[in-house]
Amino acid sequence: IKDEADEKKKKSSYKLGGRVHLDNWNFIDSDAGINELETGDPTDDPENRWDFRRIRLELAGDVPNNMLFRIQIDFNNPAQAEMKDVYLGFNNLPNNQTLLIGNQKRPIGLDHLNSSRHNVFAERPLAVETFNEDARRLGACMYGYSADEMFHWRYGAFLLENLNTDGRYRGDFNEAGVYGRLSSSPWYDKTSGGRGYLHLAMSGSVNQTDGNGTLDADDNANEARFRTRPLARSDSRWYNTNRILGANNYEQLGLESILNIGALQITGEYFNNWVQRDPLGGFSGEDLHFHGGYIYASYFLTGEHIPYDRVTGTIDRVKPFENFFLVDRCTGGTGSGWGALAMALRYDYIDLSDSDIRGGQGHAWTAGLNWYWTAYSKLQTNLVWGEVNNGGQGLSSTPLATGVDGDYTILGMRYMIDF
Amino acid sequence: IKDEADEKKKKSSYKLGGRVHLDNWNFIDSDAGINELETGDPTDDPENRWDFRRIRLELAGDVPNNMLFRIQIDFNNPAQAEMKDVYLGFNNLPNNQTLLIGNQKRPIGLDHLNSSRHNVFAERPLAVETFNEDARRLGACMYGYSADEMFHWRYGAFLLENLNTDGRYRGDFNEAGVYGRLSSSPWYDKTSGGRGYLHLAMSGSVNQTDGNGTLDADDNANEARFRTRPLARSDSRWYNTNRILGANNYEQLGLESILNIGALQITGEYFNNWVQRDPLGGFSGEDLHFHGGYIYASYFLTGEHIPYDRVTGTIDRVKPFENFFLVDRCTGGTGSGWGALAMALRYDYIDLSDSDIRGGQGHAWTAGLNWYWTAYSKLQTNLVWGEVNNGGQGLSSTPLATGVDGDYTILGMRYMIDF
Amino acid sequence: IKDEADEKKKKSSYKLGGRVHLDNWNFIDSDAGINELETGDPTDDPENRWDFRRIRLELAGDVPNNMLFRIQIDFNNPAQAEMKDVYLGFNNLPNNQTLLIGNQKRPIGLDHLNSSRHNVFAERPLAVETFNEDARRLGACMYGYSADEMFHWRYGAFLLENLNTDGRYRGDFNEAGVYGRLSSSPWYDKTSGGRGYLHLAMSGSVNQTDGNGTLDADDNANEARFRTRPLARSDSRWYNTNRILGANNYEQLGLESILNIGALQITGEYFNNWVQRDPLGGFSGEDLHFHGGYIYASYFLTGEHIPYDRVTGTIDRVKPFENFFLVDRCTGGTGSGWGALAMALRYDYIDLSDSDIRGGQGHAWTAGLNWYWTAYSKLQTNLVWGEVNNGGQGLSSTPLATGVDGDYTILGMRYMIDF
Repeated sequence: IKDEADEKKKKSSYKLGGRVHLDNWNFIDSDAGINELETGDPTDDPENRWDFRRIRLELAGDVPNNMLFRIQIDFNNPAQAEMKDVYLGFNNLPNNQTLLIGNQKRPIGLDHLNSSRHNVFAERPLAVETFNEDARRLGACMYGYSADEMFHWRYGAFLLENLNTDGRYRGDFNEAGVYGRLSSSPWYDKTSGGRGYLHLAMSGSVNQTDGNGTLDADDNANEARFRTRPLARSDSRWYNTNRILGANNYEQLGLESILNIGALQITGEYFNNWVQRDPLGGFSGEDLHFHGGYIYASYFLTGEHIPYDRVTGTIDRVKPFENFFLVDRCTGGTGSGWGALAMALRYDYIDLSDSDIRGGQGHAWTAGLNWYWTAYSKLQTNLVWGEVNNGGQGLSSTPLATGVDGDYTILGMRYMIDF
Repeated sequence: IKDEADEKKKKSSYKLGGRVHLDNWNFIDSDAGINELETGDPTDDPENRWDFRRIRLELAGDVPNNMLFRIQIDFNNPAQAEMKDVYLGFNNLPNNQTLLIGNQKRPIGLDHLNSSRHNVFAERPLAVETFNEDARRLGACMYGYSADEMFHWRYGAFLLENLNTDGRYRGDFNEAGVYGRLSSSPWYDKTSGGRGYLHLAMSGSVNQTDGNGTLDADDNANEARFRTRPLARSDSRWYNTNRILGANNYEQLGLESILNIGALQITGEYFNNWVQRDPLGGFSGEDLHFHGGYIYASYFLTGEHIPYDRVTGTIDRVKPFENFFLVDRCTGGTGSGWGALAMALRYDYIDLSDSDIRGGQGHAWTAGLNWYWTAYSKLQTNLVWGEVNNGGQGLSSTPLATGVDGDYTILGMRYMIDF
Repeated sequence: IKDEADEKKKKSSYKLGGRVHLDNWNFIDSDAGINELETGDPTDDPENRWDFRRIRLELAGDVPNNMLFRIQIDFNNPAQAEMKDVYLGFNNLPNNQTLLIGNQKRPIGLDHLNSSRHNVFAERPLAVETFNEDARRLGACMYGYSADEMFHWRYGAFLLENLNTDGRYRGDFNEAGVYGRLSSSPWYDKTSGGRGYLHLAMSGSVNQTDGNGTLDADDNANEARFRTRPLARSDSRWYNTNRILGANNYEQLGLESILNIGALQITGEYFNNWVQRDPLGGFSGEDLHFHGGYIYASYFLTGEHIPYDRVTGTIDRVKPFENFFLVDRCTGGTGSGWGALAMALRYDYIDLSDSDIRGGQGHAWTAGLNWYWTAYSKLQTNLVWGEVNNGGQGLSSTPLATGVDGDYTILGMRYMIDF
């Protein structure tokens, strides 16, 4: 038996996975300001669309001994694939720690650390995507948790440029940041299998950016840019500071909480982002403060709950009490199950307009209905109402005299499966 | 045992697959008209070529319970990958039905529903590729069969734009169609293991297209375009109506039959395609009728037969009586096997010239020799003689005063393996 | 049991694999000449960089009976994937031979036939990459070895154009070559498990190129071009003859040796490359002779050795005596292992300047330190000092009046895992 175990230890093991997310987005209503933010033309409204949002293949596993790897490629745009997680790492380090080196999520905020397979709404909150755009960067990050699973931590150093499509960072200026997150689940009701819990966490980052961007000889564009789409897959980012010329540093602070009581979950996050800059390219050198947050309530009409993973400080896969199915019975007649059903409502707020930067300020409501067919598949429906005020900086690299305002209504559906 | 079965039901299962098809095409003979259709220059003849025609990886499987998925990516042009089947679905629906949502083949005609692994000729018939270009579209489609396997049906709704390379549909006009196919195998000789059978089927579609194409504000290009290459991998489509400005609708009707008697198979299909249009961009508003078909005979010199899958109404994998091999025997000397050998001859006809549209009309002969090394690998050789008359619309977006005519002779070889 | 074996023989088998190589390159020192070779501007120095050098996924296996396949895709630049090995083949041929058809390495030289997973230095020697750029081409190649494993041979015919990114060869001129390599291990110390061995080999090729390149109607660019980066991942090739207009043929001869005595290995190769040409485009028609080679010594401080694979005539995977790990012990305290450590020094020489072609001539030293964490992962550090003399032809398609000279110092690190 020892021999067998030894033999086993000497072989690499792997796991294949994947996901398909298919989206349909309808831009039901948009005014001239929104049209301009989307297409540059106040009379040309956003196009409706079907998108493969994710077509992801993944190979992950262990290498003997105590090392691991993961390669995840997304073919949602097949002719222009993207990498997601691509790393190697060391596990079984002291204090339940794992060190990963490569492309991975930066430890800031909650919603981007949750898997897109498990999130309650189709697209991530305004503040989460704005202050942690696309989440993944090249870096080294340590992950650990306390033996009683009360605490989870992650901290690391990351390059700021997004390498997801080209896999390469070129430039003599090191635009980089240090990131850290500490989460805790002070209440976790084990007797009910985790139907009740409280999650609290804070995270922060300190970043250095190339103030003069591509004005000098190095290839580094200024990475002090904060932007997001309107909780839906538009072509353009309607909330967008653009690259802030003269910005040399920025710092972030995020606060999170989840309260889960059976079928009900209430979750909120709040982000602060401070930017220090010098005057350049017509912009004043005044320091900037951007901020935003969200709160949502989610409720399962069919009684399930959203599980929580104490070891990573994120939400986990929902398991319906009954799967959706419709089959011929052996004994005649049709058998059926209807899956799980959850309703959710989210309020978002973001403020990216400060001093002479008109990145846009606004709030938005998202109503969601999630129909879980199985633990691995569901249909999400999101209806979004929102507004942008004093925006438009994304359309221009010089200071704007006036901002762009607009309202929007968007209806989206997502068909999801993962394995 | 029940526990084990339950456990098994709770796990996802998957299957990996792939195929490599490597082509060599020699444009043995072409006249000035063909040169113009291929390169735009009557004096520049088509280049000979080696192409990886397919480098396909596939991950498919089941998700507990009663759902399934498939992701298939083709790397034949590695820097510009394409998606093929990408879908999620529900199986075990009443009446032996499966519902798939995603990128999948439209149910019209036979030859495109056959796998490229099993088809008798290297490239699909003129009419099949013309009226079902690239086959796969984003849609929802139901697949079913009768309990006695006498009937198979598929029906669904599909967007008309081809998303294979970019995975996204953008536009406020819904260019879409409904498609259906009913097939039957009234004769299927079970006692010989399916060496004798008769397949009959009909299929049809009704489609709505964006008549004014990109002339208006929406992003939709007119999808009323019918075109195909000359039964070989040329750069351009020599039979090509181009996008028919003013076309608002089109309808299709296809008829199929297969008669298989042991080593001999005779297969034919015929397609009608009607287009309704308004006058626009210099084109008359006259309705159009395009049509075409093919018939082939295939014969195994070594006695095998082409199997038939009654549940999908398509042909299946050929299993040679003896594989190709050449090995040293343990007892000395060389052992060998020579695989299976089949000859085939196909006649193709297509007519894409009607009213002021000079899409090209012509017929072609294809002689094929297939050397099956194993059930999973073979060498195909195709020699094609054909002609184009009154073509050239593919070179111009305005009506042509005169058409382009030409003859061609092409020799192709394909090295194939799949797993 | 026979039934089971029969059943097994009828099924395809496959193996998944992959590798992640992450690079950091620092261009510590470069003068005006090097700046010009890299950026075209003597005042703009090479940018430092992080690159995913390889993100490779691989599916390989057997098809019943006696056939095999391999598909290997590299996503180091995810939006522009590349194919590596993509072939089908016949195995178990007489005399321990295997025939592969598809994209595969040309049998010339040693270092390119070694896997990038096993090589001692991060980047391949100047002469190896110059005279066998990117190694893989579309071709048919036979691989075999003698029953006593004393001899290994490979020979085949290959197209010269690199199809790795587009998968297609277009053109009426067949630029192709025949290649062959014979290797032997006259001394191989089996009693020590292969800690002592001597490898000797020679290889050669004869190639036909399209002298007038794209000046005529065919699509073939002249493939008589010899070039390489400076033992590091620069943007440009600093040693570069450019496409030699007028070149009609070239021939290559390579010699190899490895002497391994326990922890010490001494390896060297030498290449000759002769080009025949006609006068064209301002270049003289004089025949050309390019040549180069390298020699390195590698030594394991921790006592391991570099294994050798007699059946392929290449080096194999190093297995550390002790893996790197750092774990909490059950009994308290921390357990640790430190992996294997090897030092290496390489001398490179290349001469690509002859007659009116100023491709660059120079030598370079590479000091390497390899820290093996496990048999499947390691960290490579390379420090490179080198020079280019009489180069610059890569910047121009006409003869240069004077060459470009320069010195460089580069520091690189590579994080590697494979599975």
